[in-house]
Amino acid sequence: MEHLAEILTQLFVLLLATKVGDELFKRLHQPPLVGEILGGVLVGPAVLGWYTVNPETTLFAEIGVVLLLFQVGVETRLADLLRVGGTAAGVGAMGVLIPFGAGFGIGWLLGLDAAGSVFLGAALTATSVGITSRALGALGALATRPGRVILGAAIIDDVLAMLILAVAVGLAGGEVSVGRIGLLLVMAAAFIGITVLAGTGILRRHRSLLTVPHFAETPFLPGMILMLGLAALAAWIGLAAIIGAFLAGMVVGESAERNALEEEVAPVAAFFTPFFFGSIGAQIDLAGLASFSTLGLLAAVTVVAVAAKFLGALGGGWSLPRAEAVLVGWGMVPRGEVGIVVAGLGITAGAISGSLYSVVVGMAVATTLLVPPLLPRLVRGAAPVTAEADPEH
Amino acid sequence: MEHLAEILTQLFVLLLATKVGDELFKRLHQPPLVGEILGGVLVGPAVLGWYTVNPETTLFAEIGVVLLLFQVGVETRLADLLRVGGTAAGVGAMGVLIPFGAGFGIGWLLGLDAAGSVFLGAALTATSVGITSRALGALGALATRPGRVILGAAIIDDVLAMLILAVAVGLAGGEVSVGRIGLLLVMAAAFIGITVLAGTGILRRHRSLLTVPHFAETPFLPGMILMLGLAALAAWIGLAAIIGAFLAGMVVGESAERNALEEEVAPVAAFFTPFFFGSIGAQIDLAGLASFSTLGLLAAVTVVAVAAKFLGALGGGWSLPRAEAVLVGWGMVPRGEVGIVVAGLGITAGAISGSLYSVVVGMAVATTLLVPPLLPRLVRGAAPVTAEADPEH
Repeated sequence: MEHLAEILTQLFVLLLATKVGDELFKRLHQPPLVGEILGGVLVGPAVLGWYTVNPETTLFAEIGVVLLLFQVGVETRLADLLRVGGTAAGVGAMGVLIPFGAGFGIGWLLGLDAAGSVFLGAALTATSVGITSRALGALGALATRPGRVILGAAIIDDVLAMLILAVAVGLAGGEVSVGRIGLLLVMAAAFIGITVLAGTGILRRHRSLLTVPHFAETPFLPGMILMLGLAALAAWIGLAAIIGAFLAGMVVGESAERNALEEEVAPVAAFFTPFFFGSIGAQIDLAGLASFSTLGLLAAVTVVAVAAKFLGALGGGWSLPRAEAVLVGWGMVPRGEVGIVVAGLGITAGAISGSLYSVVVGMAVATTLLVPPLLPRLVRGAAPVTAEADPEH
Repeated sequence: MEHLAEILTQLFVLLLATKVGDELFKRLHQPPLVGEILGGVLVGPAVLGWYTVNPETTLFAEIGVVLLLFQVGVETRLADLLRVGGTAAGVGAMGVLIPFGAGFGIGWLLGLDAAGSVFLGAALTATSVGITSRALGALGALATRPGRVILGAAIIDDVLAMLILAVAVGLAGGEVSVGRIGLLLVMAAAFIGITVLAGTGILRRHRSLLTVPHFAETPFLPGMILMLGLAALAAWIGLAAIIGAFLAGMVVGESAERNALEEEVAPVAAFFTPFFFGSIGAQIDLAGLASFSTLGLLAAVTVVAVAAKFLGALGGGWSLPRAEAVLVGWGMVPRGEVGIVVAGLGITAGAISGSLYSVVVGMAVATTLLVPPLLPRLVRGAAPVTAEADPEH
């Protein structure tokens, strides 16, 4: 009973803080999600200490970003994604390689061992597509070509990041199995390929498969079940759960009752996602950043993280018009929860120190806060180009 | 990452099983919530063992019943509840005293000590208003006089059950503090009184307080925040969290945008409540009920639990027309999650044995499965009476 009261209080505090931040930033004409993250910083251990990270709220945060990507998936058609496939692959690959190299280099300069350097590289590699897609969605820019390139690149990005992480965990454990890493790659490719092709194929042929007379009255609960199932499967393989949720959304988005589905998912997502944004903010550890040297390192790592991701993604998107490539490059910059998770794995594996963990978390939050305020101008800049004919089509 | 995959899998399994049970029972013209509970029995430890009770899913179940009572609160006006206040108080009080006496008597016959007997009495006392209100809501009978009597009685019931539980925990710990129990009573009365009177009063005067220009665009998130806050407060005092959620619903239900609120809450509740019904079923422990003597005890306890609650509530509702009193009496029978929680507290306090725990859980599930199939006929029987003039008005 006491435990329940405790958890309900934590949920109450975090939801209230994020909502106040959201409304405040709307009135200041700033991105509401930044307000939600700062709400989390305020009530989290860094400032007031009213909210402490716990497994239950963490699950709410995770379901929040899972729902976010499910919603994005529902709005995304496979054909549109495949049309930008080549560009997305380039952006994803370069957006992983350059930041990884930069992170590994910083680790080497700091005197970390191989495992620690690979972990730091992996933390700089991660892209939080949840942040960008929420911000782009709010601007109505998810269905533009740069929006789709970012989504496609995020999938490539996550597969590569999973492989790098497998190497990092292997190094920390003393051995790297090439066979295991090959198996991971095959499983990930099979999961994504089979889910998307078979799933969307089946639903496109039987557009009311999920509803009466077959199953439910609306595709909402079947959609939620598929979302949880594919998110779990992705997590078991070693991919991010959000990749499974995104694929589930793409599949369910083919059903005839798509509009009813979107209307029912919206309030569920509105309830869960503040926990996601708020709990990113609540990870910030000011005590761990108290010394000048750590703050200096944080500044340096953040600058490198932004520059490496931006330049890598910009390079990978060289075939796009310049304004679109710039939007894509910036859109890939937020590290969000993914960088924090990788850093957490690194500290668990004993490969990075507690103060370096605080630095990576600080970098993840800083890159996340930096991007949304810039997006409106970048989207406006790219819009006239997007409206023209599509060169890859 | 593995933990997340595990939890997502558990959520997936439970949601799928309850949804299949729900759809199956709809097609058999049986109450869907019974199908959801049986889905939980099927995947739970009793049969397949695919789902095991864990803190995260338990929280989802708890939020499910909290949302259920919040929805009921939104549809309930304070004046309607006060109009049946006298009858509800009688039903609540008698519906607690008779089952408590019966449970205490069984404990004494079984040779339990005072603490054990009080725990058994408390477990028979509990009413799961979540089950009845969902079943009545599905029949469109929540806004009838018997529906309101059940809701009002459930509040009285819960306050009395809290006091009995405080005595039980005190006895198990070796001392009962009369001062502490008096304080609990005062706090509970103050919480309920102040919340309802001040809350509904303020919102009735400022019907758009929760929305633009004051706060949010729709009263949905403010409503969720208030729901979590009052549920937490109720749980801190020692009341059921659902009482706080019900009061929050009554308060928010006064706002001008009530319809928009109901539409947005519905899918969130639809997502969470299956976890509530499913996890009741998943508590069943067939191994603990394996012997003939335990099964006999289960049958005896269940018969006593049904008879005592029905007769107590029927007696308390003597001023109602007979068909309505019968509906109220049956409506109070389900013990649901409340009986299970009380039994869990009893085993934690060392006052009841493991096999008696299994018996109480079995009784709680049995009483819960028994009622919904009977309700349609009882509601039809009471309907002509309800349509007439209201004697208490």
